[in-house]
Amino acid sequence: MRHINEDTITQAVIARHAAAGDARLREVMTSLVQHLHAFAREVKLTEAEWDGGLRFLAECGRAHVPGRPEVTLLSDTLGLSALVTALNQRKPRGCTEASVAASAPADVAAPGRGSDAGERCYVCGRVLALDGTPIAGAEIRAGRAGDDTGQERLLTGADGSFLFSTGVAVPRPIAHDGPVGRLLHALGRHPWRPAHLSFIISAPGYERLVTHVFRQGDPFLDADAAFGVRGSLVADWVRHERGRTPDGHTSERPFTTLDFAFVLNATTGDTP
Amino acid sequence: MRHINEDTITQAVIARHAAAGDARLREVMTSLVQHLHAFAREVKLTEAEWDGGLRFLAECGRAHVPGRPEVTLLSDTLGLSALVTALNQRKPRGCTEASVAASAPADVAAPGRGSDAGERCYVCGRVLALDGTPIAGAEIRAGRAGDDTGQERLLTGADGSFLFSTGVAVPRPIAHDGPVGRLLHALGRHPWRPAHLSFIISAPGYERLVTHVFRQGDPFLDADAAFGVRGSLVADWVRHERGRTPDGHTSERPFTTLDFAFVLNATTGDTP
Repeated sequence: MRHINEDTITQAVIARHAAAGDARLREVMTSLVQHLHAFAREVKLTEAEWDGGLRFLAECGRAHVPGRPEVTLLSDTLGLSALVTALNQRKPRGCTEASVAASAPADVAAPGRGSDAGERCYVCGRVLALDGTPIAGAEIRAGRAGDDTGQERLLTGADGSFLFSTGVAVPRPIAHDGPVGRLLHALGRHPWRPAHLSFIISAPGYERLVTHVFRQGDPFLDADAAFGVRGSLVADWVRHERGRTPDGHTSERPFTTLDFAFVLNATTGDTP
Repeated sequence: MRHINEDTITQAVIARHAAAGDARLREVMTSLVQHLHAFAREVKLTEAEWDGGLRFLAECGRAHVPGRPEVTLLSDTLGLSALVTALNQRKPRGCTEASVAASAPADVAAPGRGSDAGERCYVCGRVLALDGTPIAGAEIRAGRAGDDTGQERLLTGADGSFLFSTGVAVPRPIAHDGPVGRLLHALGRHPWRPAHLSFIISAPGYERLVTHVFRQGDPFLDADAAFGVRGSLVADWVRHERGRTPDGHTSERPFTTLDFAFVLNATTGDTP
């Protein structure tokens, strides 16, 4: 191909992939090249913008480290993570919806976090099959975003129930002192995610569920920087001034309770 | 937006950018999000592929260093660089076409390079306006890809002519021991670029020209890994067994000559 121009370049690149041994890779790269080129044509991307875009991607790559996955934050804030979750986690009506895996929150304490830090949130819930049958022995990993020390790991009882307490989750921004934060700022966007607890629930015979439970009334429910909110995942977190806690004790201090039923989708095929 | 799903996510992201102060940034990001999402939908990108793609981008960013711009190599090999050049360097018929800026060649010597390394290539050329008028005092930076020590900087004479000698260029692969090289391999593609000399030519009153001159007969002319070849940029590089060289000396050893006329496009507007 010696006469490549803006009209022929896309087909020239795609033709070069005809020899790819992996048919799926060829399919994915064909679509990627078509859309990448269509984008550049549509906006008539300038050389300065192209150069700036490459530098931005390189900077995201350099900033991408364990615990601070900058490229994942980019995917989250552009809605790609939410879209991929939606495309791959289609579940029958009645099953609990999936949400994006927790993205890296900023290390900085969020406003209001200090005042809530000492307050307990009791989470009592159940894990059920679509027909309402309790699932015993389901493994639950739960916690506040970025709160590794507060991560809970537990199993449901014979009635599918579980109970744990954790700190009360509050709104937190995603890490925004890097290139993705600069992009959000330039786009007039804030980096906040609404208060939520993360859950990963596994049980033999059921699809693994990665999701969040959000707090009704949170000011960022309609503006999650990572586009993870689903209406079905917003629940009442009930505040109590004092009284009997779900674990049978009595508290003289305020506490919060959350009751949520997770409905898992059965796997099909030959997995047990 | 609390009911985000695969059908509503794209509009939800775009709506979030309504407050961007920079209208051009908003336009570019709107198109980017639409095409990024359309790609994911079209191939029904799996969660494993999404994860692999993010890791790949992060690795490219980490590998991106001065002299080895891995993200630029990715753009080159996906044809984006050639497309952006074509979109921005539309010139009147008769002007010399632009090509992609030289991408990082591999440090390894290419087969055949050793044998050519001692042979000189005399480049005699002229820099002209579209009407054939010679352009005196045009600044030329020229050289073989990646050959910083061999870079020539010179000015055209009163008749628009220039002359320099350099090593004979040979085909060289782009740097391919990183993630982009792995991708090319998986796609069944080679990393080679045809032999070429790079030129950057500047003169007051004319558009800066960044281009290559390729060698007629090169085995990679139809398969440039960076999609930089234009038919108008392929020239006869004439080999001489011995005789009078263009600089007036006599050579008892073989040498090559290249004669090429560069036609610059006048700038419009108020630039001198």
